[in-house]
Amino acid sequence: MAFEKSEKQNVFERRESDVRSYARNFPVKFVSSSGATVRDESGKEYIDFLAGCSSLNYGHNHPVLKKALIEYMERDGVTHSLDMETDAKEAFLLEFEQTILKPRSLDYVVQFPGPTGANAVEAALKLARKVTGRENIISFTNGFHGVTLGALAATGNGHHRGGAGVALGGVTRMPYDNYFGDGSDSAAQLDRVLSDSSSGVDAPAAIIVETVQGEGGLNVASFSWLKKVQSIARKHGALFIVDDIQAGIGRTGTFFSFEPAELNPDIVTLAKSISGFGLPMALTLIKRDLDIWKPGEHNGTFRGNCHAFITAKAALETYWRDKKFEQEISEKAAILENALSNIKDENSSLVVGLKGRGMMRGIDVKSGDIAAEIVTEAFEHGLIIETSGTDDEIVKCLTPLTISNDDLEKGLNILTQAVRTVAKKHTQQAA
Amino acid sequence: MAFEKSEKQNVFERRESDVRSYARNFPVKFVSSSGATVRDESGKEYIDFLAGCSSLNYGHNHPVLKKALIEYMERDGVTHSLDMETDAKEAFLLEFEQTILKPRSLDYVVQFPGPTGANAVEAALKLARKVTGRENIISFTNGFHGVTLGALAATGNGHHRGGAGVALGGVTRMPYDNYFGDGSDSAAQLDRVLSDSSSGVDAPAAIIVETVQGEGGLNVASFSWLKKVQSIARKHGALFIVDDIQAGIGRTGTFFSFEPAELNPDIVTLAKSISGFGLPMALTLIKRDLDIWKPGEHNGTFRGNCHAFITAKAALETYWRDKKFEQEISEKAAILENALSNIKDENSSLVVGLKGRGMMRGIDVKSGDIAAEIVTEAFEHGLIIETSGTDDEIVKCLTPLTISNDDLEKGLNILTQAVRTVAKKHTQQAA
Amino acid sequence: MAFEKSEKQNVFERRESDVRSYARNFPVKFVSSSGATVRDESGKEYIDFLAGCSSLNYGHNHPVLKKALIEYMERDGVTHSLDMETDAKEAFLLEFEQTILKPRSLDYVVQFPGPTGANAVEAALKLARKVTGRENIISFTNGFHGVTLGALAATGNGHHRGGAGVALGGVTRMPYDNYFGDGSDSAAQLDRVLSDSSSGVDAPAAIIVETVQGEGGLNVASFSWLKKVQSIARKHGALFIVDDIQAGIGRTGTFFSFEPAELNPDIVTLAKSISGFGLPMALTLIKRDLDIWKPGEHNGTFRGNCHAFITAKAALETYWRDKKFEQEISEKAAILENALSNIKDENSSLVVGLKGRGMMRGIDVKSGDIAAEIVTEAFEHGLIIETSGTDDEIVKCLTPLTISNDDLEKGLNILTQAVRTVAKKHTQQAA
Amino acid sequence: MAFEKSEKQNVFERRESDVRSYARNFPVKFVSSSGATVRDESGKEYIDFLAGCSSLNYGHNHPVLKKALIEYMERDGVTHSLDMETDAKEAFLLEFEQTILKPRSLDYVVQFPGPTGANAVEAALKLARKVTGRENIISFTNGFHGVTLGALAATGNGHHRGGAGVALGGVTRMPYDNYFGDGSDSAAQLDRVLSDSSSGVDAPAAIIVETVQGEGGLNVASFSWLKKVQSIARKHGALFIVDDIQAGIGRTGTFFSFEPAELNPDIVTLAKSISGFGLPMALTLIKRDLDIWKPGEHNGTFRGNCHAFITAKAALETYWRDKKFEQEISEKAAILENALSNIKDENSSLVVGLKGRGMMRGIDVKSGDIAAEIVTEAFEHGLIIETSGTDDEIVKCLTPLTISNDDLEKGLNILTQAVRTVAKKHTQQAA
Repeated sequence: MAFEKSEKQNVFERRESDVRSYARNFPVKFVSSSGATVRDESGKEYIDFLAGCSSLNYGHNHPVLKKALIEYMERDGVTHSLDMETDAKEAFLLEFEQTILKPRSLDYVVQFPGPTGANAVEAALKLARKVTGRENIISFTNGFHGVTLGALAATGNGHHRGGAGVALGGVTRMPYDNYFGDGSDSAAQLDRVLSDSSSGVDAPAAIIVETVQGEGGLNVASFSWLKKVQSIARKHGALFIVDDIQAGIGRTGTFFSFEPAELNPDIVTLAKSISGFGLPMALTLIKRDLDIWKPGEHNGTFRGNCHAFITAKAALETYWRDKKFEQEISEKAAILENALSNIKDENSSLVVGLKGRGMMRGIDVKSGDIAAEIVTEAFEHGLIIETSGTDDEIVKCLTPLTISNDDLEKGLNILTQAVRTVAKKHTQQAA
Repeated sequence: MAFEKSEKQNVFERRESDVRSYARNFPVKFVSSSGATVRDESGKEYIDFLAGCSSLNYGHNHPVLKKALIEYMERDGVTHSLDMETDAKEAFLLEFEQTILKPRSLDYVVQFPGPTGANAVEAALKLARKVTGRENIISFTNGFHGVTLGALAATGNGHHRGGAGVALGGVTRMPYDNYFGDGSDSAAQLDRVLSDSSSGVDAPAAIIVETVQGEGGLNVASFSWLKKVQSIARKHGALFIVDDIQAGIGRTGTFFSFEPAELNPDIVTLAKSISGFGLPMALTLIKRDLDIWKPGEHNGTFRGNCHAFITAKAALETYWRDKKFEQEISEKAAILENALSNIKDENSSLVVGLKGRGMMRGIDVKSGDIAAEIVTEAFEHGLIIETSGTDDEIVKCLTPLTISNDDLEKGLNILTQAVRTVAKKHTQQAA
Repeated sequence: MAFEKSEKQNVFERRESDVRSYARNFPVKFVSSSGATVRDESGKEYIDFLAGCSSLNYGHNHPVLKKALIEYMERDGVTHSLDMETDAKEAFLLEFEQTILKPRSLDYVVQFPGPTGANAVEAALKLARKVTGRENIISFTNGFHGVTLGALAATGNGHHRGGAGVALGGVTRMPYDNYFGDGSDSAAQLDRVLSDSSSGVDAPAAIIVETVQGEGGLNVASFSWLKKVQSIARKHGALFIVDDIQAGIGRTGTFFSFEPAELNPDIVTLAKSISGFGLPMALTLIKRDLDIWKPGEHNGTFRGNCHAFITAKAALETYWRDKKFEQEISEKAAILENALSNIKDENSSLVVGLKGRGMMRGIDVKSGDIAAEIVTEAFEHGLIIETSGTDDEIVKCLTPLTISNDDLEKGLNILTQAVRTVAKKHTQQAA
Repeated sequence: MAFEKSEKQNVFERRESDVRSYARNFPVKFVSSSGATVRDESGKEYIDFLAGCSSLNYGHNHPVLKKALIEYMERDGVTHSLDMETDAKEAFLLEFEQTILKPRSLDYVVQFPGPTGANAVEAALKLARKVTGRENIISFTNGFHGVTLGALAATGNGHHRGGAGVALGGVTRMPYDNYFGDGSDSAAQLDRVLSDSSSGVDAPAAIIVETVQGEGGLNVASFSWLKKVQSIARKHGALFIVDDIQAGIGRTGTFFSFEPAELNPDIVTLAKSISGFGLPMALTLIKRDLDIWKPGEHNGTFRGNCHAFITAKAALETYWRDKKFEQEISEKAAILENALSNIKDENSSLVVGLKGRGMMRGIDVKSGDIAAEIVTEAFEHGLIIETSGTDDEIVKCLTPLTISNDDLEKGLNILTQAVRTVAKKHTQQAA
């Protein structure tokens, strides 16, 4: 079965696993990036409407963050600290406390569970099971929480689940808000099965939910549904966990995506844009009285990535000490929404719906193939954009939140034109 | 149950989860580090015999790596690339192919499974199950492979397993080399249970093994045992996986720890020191014909940590293009072994054994309490050192491999003195 | 914790496990029984409206069956035959083929999976997983399929699930027909989650359903819902299993409960009344082309209970060779329905609903405590009757199907009077 | 894939599942049986050295038991009683208490867990998990405990495990006494892994063991090993369960097989010969203070098989009120041992070992094919005998314990001659 790949192939084809996927949609080699712009080796520039899947909410190589990190490195700041105390971690914790927690009256302690979102989710689920002595976790249709085995059990995506090679247990799947689209109230249904001791759904340790399902297709839960789900968790003795890895850090307009819904989760997971610079970092925020971890019970080598602490602190300081940034996001979100709405109106046969909230929005073209054509067309004209949803049928815009209005419009124009081109092709084919 | 921690506490006590552990043994705030030296905020310097649990094999803030990274940042190199192609990844892959794989005739493809060792293990186990269609994984007593749920199932440590909150299935535990110490051949025993269809041990997808068990207590497998285990895997249709996360990247004297045993694993996991700079990065190396991943089947946000690729490439280039570094490690290992041997001879009532191989060695003091006293005593005199083993009864030396002979001796002197002090105390108590 | 039970206690209290439950509602010692009548040691007679939970559909000690069995024993017929061929098994199979399968055009092969319903379910689920190579089983809220670990995973009852002591995996719970009572179509919901590859509900090996949920509270699925669920199973490559252990063998009016719904299940489980005499016996009926068992792959000591084969054959011969018995059941079911309807009308504050179908009917008094009072009151007046449902809130009538009209009326009168008495008590208390 | 089996086939081929296995070795139809003799439809008689896999320890249709059962039936004794109190159950419990428990100073309470051995094991494991709050069960290589999912997890046989279709979790497999045959002490090894909190073997709820492994190949544990295992269970807070389903009820010479080893198990499972007549019945014996079941927590339709209670009581009364029966078994065991020893001596190239203890003995011919030839040869000459062991390489003698010396010798002569014939054939082939 073995074969020798030709030396003529490039090293990616020759030496990287076939598991790579984004690389296939954007078959160029990138060499630099700043703000909302990425450049390939030929010097061609691309507007970035992917932003590291919401890991680059402040754009690429943000100058303030970059400066802070280079200064830290030049003075031989500690890079890798396991879970020891460093000035970098202290500065981050102080900033996070003052700028994020206190103004929102959130009394969380911070766990550094390892540098990835999956680490944050694994720690959250472990702790919920430890606190409650229960095993079952309620998660929702189309939810995405990572691909390590504990997180994967809570993830809905069949492609990823199929990779597990083992049964994924300990999780009960319930319908997300309006999942059935039949007018039934999925929160009421959840309450019903948890209230019925013979429903066959075991009492849960936690309910884990995204306020907007990024990978699941930009599905938006209503605030009232979220509040109901939180109440149901409380009523049935389960912890209420918001996975804010993709929707948090300003993506939907506020630091935590759940602020406008006035939720008060027991545990919150953060990752992706928390470092601000695209560096691996994740947090599990835990209500103080639930922090029953024993020392080292959950550990990991890269919990103390001080480079990330430095940029994370700089990002909070730069953007979240006052309300300006929220205001800017809100304005850009209106531009984005308007543009997508126009695209839909203009291409109503192709675009069947608008999805998302804040700066996490997309169009539903109902077909993964059509979405892929749009992505390809857009990329040829200088726009990096991706899809999500069960069949990759949602073309989703995850621009840097700091994108200039010029770049935003430029990108939206490319997208508009790409949809037009694909719509035209399909109209012609149909004719 | 909630309580407000006093504002007078420092922010770590006030805001960080009680899960932190190393911080408890080294209760100071570190502010900078270079080579084998770490400094706290008071300016006090410490020799580092922990090296980020073998994540800093080239020392702290290695000047060549640091320079390469700062230059990359200054030219706005891409930081976060998901799994897209960048010049940083290309340079790493080319260097890894030329400097590591080719000279060793290893035809692996490289998976970037996410930035942590646990990611590498989770990907390895998933792939083994996918390739074989089997579920069972053989792992060994005292093995440590990470704390995400899939990796944790393979990990032996009861403290970490206890944190899972769910049953950890799909893994059969077998005795490591000489585990029973009763003269029985644990490889033969493994072959026996796999050869007997009624043993109750299901046919395995993979056998995963460390050549030296770092967290497990610096237990060393003989080369002949390792070869036997590899043969047994082949005989029974299981993949042979070497978890080289702690023992690899020069720690035992060669790039891969299994080189002197002349193994040829189907999958190898690397992490910790692969970036060379302490940055989060991990690799799953896969024999070409086993790379049956479908695109995106295993994914993750931080698989493309380009900062780490830059320093990883610089480290390979600096240390592994010729045999000099291996020679240096060998010389230092002799010094280390000699010093530990002297410590044992001098304190034979306290120190019952020498453990480990290469630059991964320690002393067995049979008691976690005594080991903790030694660690505390050493830290007071300027040495950062830690323990491992079931009861934390092994005081282990994981110095940077690049440590100067001066620093190595200085550190060993502090350790020698610390053991003496503790031994004296206990002799007096006994008297 | 240990204590010596007094020698004065009777042997049940002294020597039988506290797990016994029915014995608590009917605290007398029974010594003989015939037809619908059971007698205690004092000679007191009771009408049996429980019938061994539908295991005695032809009544106690049916004279024809008894005679056949005694004759078989007197001629030293084989009692215990493992899975070997005996004349007793042959006669049963021939009768089952001619009298049950052929007239219904059902081409099943018969597995004797062990003598209990749980054996039949365990075999069915194993085979479905083996046939499809899938693991997930869809079962329904309030479903009851037995308490061995494989069957228990499919069972909804929290009391029984709680006894497992381990996580019960491999099963996804979906709402039974009209479970939510909110007008939503639970079959459509099932189709939706199975059609969505990111729903998080893995492709199922089988869907297992009861047409009427006996233990679950006499919940009746509509024929159209059952047909839809069967179609959904087919559409998604899952086997369709009807668990007819309680509802089958005439209980709802036809031999198989699914006949009027015109279902064509891939697997059917039978137990309880299949022996006709209350003897342990169970069947797993398998569509011919799904019978991919290897010899002995599922086994068990008591698969060849020839006594049960003898009475089972006699029962089929006596009752099912023509349509008379079905006609009689239908007439009695009308009497039963009418009486329960009158009870409801007369006690509308206490009795909130009628449940069930055929000769498997009950009244919903919404409260387990009230239902228990009715049971106690009825027993004092000579009626054995039990409850079911999540909170044991359904008083259920499972008379022998062969009960005389006299006994049926006598029993219904006792029940009517018991409800009246309890209703009166509660009206007085409320006043 | 479906096919219509010819009407010319007999009904077993036409209508019974391919899962049947014993029927293949003994392709005749049996019609009656008494004592150690079974007759087929042609009138041919066979000596029974299988005895329903030890379910017919008192032989077929024992006249005393038969008489008691027919009398019970003729007076309309209750057949099926769920878990209600009957005179039949009372009489059994009184007899069991007086004749079995009291003389042996065993203060067990009796659970009727359902009528099969697997029910008894499932109940035992559930209870152990409930009592300890732990999940892991230690079971042994080659152990056989049934095929329902909970019991199957503890069973070693790969053929049966393969039928599960799901991962079988919650059980750790350890080597049985002398399993490795390398002089290592498997009890000491068990103690070692349980004493090491990082061994990866979680603290067990129970250790379940057979004193002689019937299906596993008549492997005999030494009394000292069994005692050590019991001590290890106690030391580590696990319940000690003896599965005495095949080896109990006199098979090894005493009522419980563990009596000569002076064990004191926390839980004992009994089935097979407990009814004495081959009727489905099983017991889970529980130390009084461990009986923490809640009413109905483990249930099942056929727990109250009163026919079996009647014969079980009669058997205890007939055989166990004094020591005569034990004496007789001992004498027959000596005859059996002697004959097998002669067979071995005479055919030393074919027969490599003697296995078993008491009246549970066999010869090891190292090859399933050769064992099958012996079985076939013996059957042709009128002996029913079967094999066990991983590869069915053990020809095992499980005669009724009540077999007359004449029948025993007759059967042994047929076996002796069958081995000779097969040995001769193979000698000729080799020549």
